[in-house]
Amino acid sequence: MASTTSYNDYKERMQKIADVNFASAVLQWDQETYLPEKGAAFRGRQLSTLSEIAHQQFTDPSMKALLEQLLSSNHLSEEERKNVLVTHTDYDRRSKLTSGFVRELTETINRSFHAWINARRENRFAVFAPELAKLIELKKQEAEAVGYQHHPYNAFLDEFDKGSTIHTIASLFEQVSPALKELLTRIQSRPQVDDSFLKQHFPKDLQWKFGLQLIEALGFDTKAGRQDVSEHPFTINFNRNDVRVTTRIDENDLSNMVWSCIHETGHALYEQGLPETGYGLPAGEASSLTIHESQSRFWENHIGRSREFCTKWLPVLKDCFPEQLRDVSVGQFYRAINKVEPSLIRTEADELTYHFHVMIRFELEKALFDNAILTEEIPEFWNAAYRNYLGVDVPDDKRGCLQDVHWSHGSFGYFPTYSLGSFHAAAYFAAMKSDLPDAEAAVSSGNYQGILEWLRNHIHPLGRIYTSTEVCRKVTGNDLQVNSFLKYVMEKYEEIYNL
Amino acid sequence: MASTTSYNDYKERMQKIADVNFASAVLQWDQETYLPEKGAAFRGRQLSTLSEIAHQQFTDPSMKALLEQLLSSNHLSEEERKNVLVTHTDYDRRSKLTSGFVRELTETINRSFHAWINARRENRFAVFAPELAKLIELKKQEAEAVGYQHHPYNAFLDEFDKGSTIHTIASLFEQVSPALKELLTRIQSRPQVDDSFLKQHFPKDLQWKFGLQLIEALGFDTKAGRQDVSEHPFTINFNRNDVRVTTRIDENDLSNMVWSCIHETGHALYEQGLPETGYGLPAGEASSLTIHESQSRFWENHIGRSREFCTKWLPVLKDCFPEQLRDVSVGQFYRAINKVEPSLIRTEADELTYHFHVMIRFELEKALFDNAILTEEIPEFWNAAYRNYLGVDVPDDKRGCLQDVHWSHGSFGYFPTYSLGSFHAAAYFAAMKSDLPDAEAAVSSGNYQGILEWLRNHIHPLGRIYTSTEVCRKVTGNDLQVNSFLKYVMEKYEEIYNL
Repeated sequence: MASTTSYNDYKERMQKIADVNFASAVLQWDQETYLPEKGAAFRGRQLSTLSEIAHQQFTDPSMKALLEQLLSSNHLSEEERKNVLVTHTDYDRRSKLTSGFVRELTETINRSFHAWINARRENRFAVFAPELAKLIELKKQEAEAVGYQHHPYNAFLDEFDKGSTIHTIASLFEQVSPALKELLTRIQSRPQVDDSFLKQHFPKDLQWKFGLQLIEALGFDTKAGRQDVSEHPFTINFNRNDVRVTTRIDENDLSNMVWSCIHETGHALYEQGLPETGYGLPAGEASSLTIHESQSRFWENHIGRSREFCTKWLPVLKDCFPEQLRDVSVGQFYRAINKVEPSLIRTEADELTYHFHVMIRFELEKALFDNAILTEEIPEFWNAAYRNYLGVDVPDDKRGCLQDVHWSHGSFGYFPTYSLGSFHAAAYFAAMKSDLPDAEAAVSSGNYQGILEWLRNHIHPLGRIYTSTEVCRKVTGNDLQVNSFLKYVMEKYEEIYNL
Repeated sequence: MASTTSYNDYKERMQKIADVNFASAVLQWDQETYLPEKGAAFRGRQLSTLSEIAHQQFTDPSMKALLEQLLSSNHLSEEERKNVLVTHTDYDRRSKLTSGFVRELTETINRSFHAWINARRENRFAVFAPELAKLIELKKQEAEAVGYQHHPYNAFLDEFDKGSTIHTIASLFEQVSPALKELLTRIQSRPQVDDSFLKQHFPKDLQWKFGLQLIEALGFDTKAGRQDVSEHPFTINFNRNDVRVTTRIDENDLSNMVWSCIHETGHALYEQGLPETGYGLPAGEASSLTIHESQSRFWENHIGRSREFCTKWLPVLKDCFPEQLRDVSVGQFYRAINKVEPSLIRTEADELTYHFHVMIRFELEKALFDNAILTEEIPEFWNAAYRNYLGVDVPDDKRGCLQDVHWSHGSFGYFPTYSLGSFHAAAYFAAMKSDLPDAEAAVSSGNYQGILEWLRNHIHPLGRIYTSTEVCRKVTGNDLQVNSFLKYVMEKYEEIYNL
């Protein structure tokens, strides 16, 4: 049958493009973990060439003809049809960019990334600004080329989470922001919890060993992935059988490594659980960055920052670090890892103030893309926003607008998925608890099998042929609501801070 | 000027193809060092796709037109013209293979490699044989497609060392073989040297630290490369600024790690010294595998197995392993690391019997490609040859015909470059000594700067626009002679064994 052949042709093309993209992913992973210093420049051009090739293969006119032929066919299964539809939307977007543009963008991203590294080293945003300005200019061109509704920033919000717009995100933030502010004020009126025991010296090797034990216990399949060290923890996959996470280790702060491990493991479990048959096809990819983030937050916060988690793991940590943790009780530990305090660094923020960090970036990115501010005005905007939202003074660029890698990667519109992910995570955790009444007891005993299975049944199988909203409807029966999230933080912090 | 534009076009195409090939190299390196178990199958298809792309880009008909236009131009510099000429020869060879064939070959190689791993695990050649037979069949097709003079095996000898044939190699072996046999017989009539102190327990971590110290001392630039552990040591480059070596560590044999480090560093120093301007072009690539091997042997044998090397490094080793090496003198150490004894494993063989291992493989490969033997007859042929050439009985396939990875990579015709490399190395070492009379004293004091500079001036700048023979003529004034090699082994072993 003609249409079976065509679908196979489509699948084969997509899988070869995936091969090239996954090869790029290996090169990126290597760049962040093992690349020797002088190798950076050539790595940049290797990555540019691979993106150019993948782009050329994907946007080849024969692909368009093939997709249209498939869309008019009646012989596809529902999943096949959805794959083709999503690919057609991708084609529509990407074919508006020339290969030359994609190459220039990749090269600019590579230069920006290195400028960002240098700027951090010198602690001066001005070192990063010229390359960032060029990158933002290209991203504006990209938005114009691919098209958007109402605002150029929407072009990127939609890319990371199909259907997201400034409007949908702002509306969610408007629902949570007053409640979080009010809760924060109440917390600040109470005595602060003590987390000083987390800031002792914890030797690197012992932290590393504990981290490995932890991620395996959570269900990370080490035969289908690995963990390494990098400056900025991330998860990357080369297919569901090779999912790699990285962590960082701060010898003077135990919590840094532990919750970064859990967070990245959440991402990795999702990738390792995506449908196997879908290699290279939308059905085999993560639904969206938002759903990806819901998985990391689910594990990091709802499981990892729970009292039950502490019950299980504090004794193990005490075995590793007997002197440092000798006198710490489960209750003290639980309160310490949930300390709420406005701070400068997003990745170290608590679950509550975290969202103000995201709101600031959301506002800033929006302002950049409607030309309300210029690249060089970022530090000023940033510092004012931190004072306004969090009441903190930013002492320097490294602890301010240079703290995150995302812009140097050209990833504008990415940050909001962190908050969206948290809101989804809370909704899914609530759904899971009503399906599995014994879940909390299982966490206390360190048995995550049932929880992972629940995720593997309800969330992981839904690839990129479902939007975040569709995933949410399937799992909770509703569009995304923030009430689960608000209920979760209210109950948690009212108890911790005795409000 | 039209021809400048064309040359730039040529250069740009070649550099993009190099980007793809170096990306493949990263994937291969990762496969041998860090790839999780379940990732192997997808890695195989990613590598196939990249080879297919590189092949398609290189053999595009427009490349042929471009090369012919350039060859008829009068505006090229000598180096440019040589680059184009070599590329034209490559084009001529590779365009005879279809992309489909290249993909099939890469996939078969991947399957063969995994079959070889499994066969070694089970210690049974029969597990490897079916995949190997398919691969040999494809290599025969390749030989027919690309063409050869006199014998299909010549198609591969020429690939690894332009101009090498069965005839040229057999003629060199005929010159060295009787002398080596005679020397071996005399050695065997003398009391054996004692190397038992090398077979004590040497902890892994300490060996690893020593290895790193050693390769840096030899001149390996760790900002332009790195060392990792793999089961089979190798050197791979992603460009001269990112050259990676691997080593293996046997806790019960110190010499394994030390001389494998030196050997791979010899390869790496060559790659790090290749001309910078030539990225992606023949002028920037190694002359041949033979010259590559001459560099590893130069360092491993002529420097690393010299008495002067022991003078410098035995004290350092004693600091690392005080108990194991306390009573060992420089003379004892020097004799131990040069112990001559017919043995089963090529990579552990001494400098003298080593060449019999190569001759056996040379005879066997020749027999495979003129259908004198079948794939399944390899163990029988192998075991008989080991008895005949080396007087040893092969107890099992792992210590027999399964010991080397090369065939599983489809690398037939590769082994002879090891012996050729040794003969070149001896010739170059003699030339170096007459230019640098103080070289031996420098080795005693651990100062390799002058020697490395000599190599950087005389050998490393000669890229693949010079054949091995041309390199040899430039450095020694003559075609390759075996007299330097024979003089070196005779003098060395007559002294060690008191002949």
